[in-house]
Amino acid sequence: MTNVTDTIPTWLSAEDLNLARARLPIVYLDVIPVRVDEAGRITRVGLLLRGRPDGSISRALISGRVLHGERIREALLRHIEKDLGALALPQLPTNPAPFTVAEYFPDPEISGFHDPRQHAVSLVYVVPVKGDCSPSQDALDLVWLTPKEAMSQNVRAEMTGGQDQLVQMALAHAGAHS
Amino acid sequence: MTNVTDTIPTWLSAEDLNLARARLPIVYLDVIPVRVDEAGRITRVGLLLRGRPDGSISRALISGRVLHGERIREALLRHIEKDLGALALPQLPTNPAPFTVAEYFPDPEISGFHDPRQHAVSLVYVVPVKGDCSPSQDALDLVWLTPKEAMSQNVRAEMTGGQDQLVQMALAHAGAHS
Amino acid sequence: MTNVTDTIPTWLSAEDLNLARARLPIVYLDVIPVRVDEAGRITRVGLLLRGRPDGSISRALISGRVLHGERIREALLRHIEKDLGALALPQLPTNPAPFTVAEYFPDPEISGFHDPRQHAVSLVYVVPVKGDCSPSQDALDLVWLTPKEAMSQNVRAEMTGGQDQLVQMALAHAGAHS
Amino acid sequence: MTNVTDTIPTWLSAEDLNLARARLPIVYLDVIPVRVDEAGRITRVGLLLRGRPDGSISRALISGRVLHGERIREALLRHIEKDLGALALPQLPTNPAPFTVAEYFPDPEISGFHDPRQHAVSLVYVVPVKGDCSPSQDALDLVWLTPKEAMSQNVRAEMTGGQDQLVQMALAHAGAHS
Repeated sequence: MTNVTDTIPTWLSAEDLNLARARLPIVYLDVIPVRVDEAGRITRVGLLLRGRPDGSISRALISGRVLHGERIREALLRHIEKDLGALALPQLPTNPAPFTVAEYFPDPEISGFHDPRQHAVSLVYVVPVKGDCSPSQDALDLVWLTPKEAMSQNVRAEMTGGQDQLVQMALAHAGAHS
Repeated sequence: MTNVTDTIPTWLSAEDLNLARARLPIVYLDVIPVRVDEAGRITRVGLLLRGRPDGSISRALISGRVLHGERIREALLRHIEKDLGALALPQLPTNPAPFTVAEYFPDPEISGFHDPRQHAVSLVYVVPVKGDCSPSQDALDLVWLTPKEAMSQNVRAEMTGGQDQLVQMALAHAGAHS
Repeated sequence: MTNVTDTIPTWLSAEDLNLARARLPIVYLDVIPVRVDEAGRITRVGLLLRGRPDGSISRALISGRVLHGERIREALLRHIEKDLGALALPQLPTNPAPFTVAEYFPDPEISGFHDPRQHAVSLVYVVPVKGDCSPSQDALDLVWLTPKEAMSQNVRAEMTGGQDQLVQMALAHAGAHS
Repeated sequence: MTNVTDTIPTWLSAEDLNLARARLPIVYLDVIPVRVDEAGRITRVGLLLRGRPDGSISRALISGRVLHGERIREALLRHIEKDLGALALPQLPTNPAPFTVAEYFPDPEISGFHDPRQHAVSLVYVVPVKGDCSPSQDALDLVWLTPKEAMSQNVRAEMTGGQDQLVQMALAHAGAHS
């Protein structure tokens, strides 16, 4: 499943990626991992904890790029495994359409979604996970909050880039009351 | 979780149900049960086989009423268990909205969805099932077809009331090609 | 377009409707009327003002029953015309699926949506209106609020039955930030 | 509304675009323009006619890139105006989420959506147009087909890259029968 010509490598050097980011919107994914009861109702929302350069903690969603030649479903599985481990048992939706689209811009005023590095067009999905989750990579921890906790001002204040909005939108989409 | 007054029974006699059916649209559900791969892609569509009075076989979806006082999610679980057994492990979607709505009428010309007994407004869901399915009640059997088989003219001809349309719509919704 | 038998009238006497309401969920619609800019972004949310028996004012959505034999799209047009007048020019969505479903119960604890009269299963739609709106029937007035105003605690407190939730969900669905 | 640094131009030379296309998925849009009746039902589907290098005619949707720094809604309006003219009066949906996502690859076997130039992730929308449409740019003509005509094998055979699938999916999404 390769789409590469013989002469052009598909990986991007850091320099090339920076160059591309200045010229093209980047295809992104955001995932809100959730626990559900047997009737499909969201009982918990998973948020990653990450350390910030200034020593503070921020809460974050599972996010990342879709690579050249990669299917969206494969990218979803890859990013979920990257952040929750290989035993999370994500249940991807049958419908390939995201429940919303977040447009991140370097200028925080444009859309309310902010990414200082790039203009990213992010497809956003709610994904129930059934298995064991162990935060990996650069995540310090993973917390499972009730919908009510996830909608509280305290929690929202610890998220960046507008991702707290995505959590609200995901819960509204799932019929949870605010 | 009862919404009953003390004096009026919530169950309907056959006569009362017939009377109500002649005067009010009935809240219905249709479920297309599917098998999915680990990336959420539909690999099989489940269709029930039922005997018809004339001795022929028809293929059918999981369908039924929402009862007074019953939540939609509970009605979905009840009807899935009724037709697929208690070990089917259905994965109800987090979003309570159906992917489409089918309006059944006694007159087949009105909407293309036909139910000789009643005007039913049916909320239609695609539901992955992960467990063992054993058709019960009045279903003779359950067959699992590939999306391509489920879209074939042969199979469509064995469905009634417009339910073949719901299968096509479900597969289109899931990104399957026809 | 009638589905009536010759002997049973489709209209319901007040008594019959009360009897049916005690035994069957009723098919309902809720509409959040909006003004949009040329790019489809919601600029205003329309809320009806109604007088309550105690002399206070409540804000409400466009709501009502689907009648026996009536298509959902026709019922949407009928209720919009009933509340906004004949010149509102509603733009019904091409997709017949509601963006969410609200389950109203006489017991306010069950779902968060409350209707003392009945168990109603309500299909909820966001409908842009392009024309002149003049509140009619029992509505005292119609106000057009910005999304921010519509999400404020003051406005939410003036809505009943959980309809403030539907406004929040509609705005989240449309990508508006809270 | 610029997100450009001072030193890097946001436009891409043909060479740079080719280079980027070999390394990153490109953010794309597909639009199925439709005529609707007053109840929101699709009455006609618009297809562009384009001449192909070999002298044959192909039918096509409205398609194109999202530019760096550009909002999706602005890109939708730009591409619709480019292909249908400035008087088309498109009614963009209030929901920013596409009804489906098409993943185009240079290899036609991967997803069924094929673009020899690039890996494109395309957000697909159904957009009612109310005004006068005059095909412009490289489109030879615009035809308005009934849903039934648009689903016929003849018409499907004149579309390329899998776009006939998007028309089928759009009509299924809108509740049209096949």
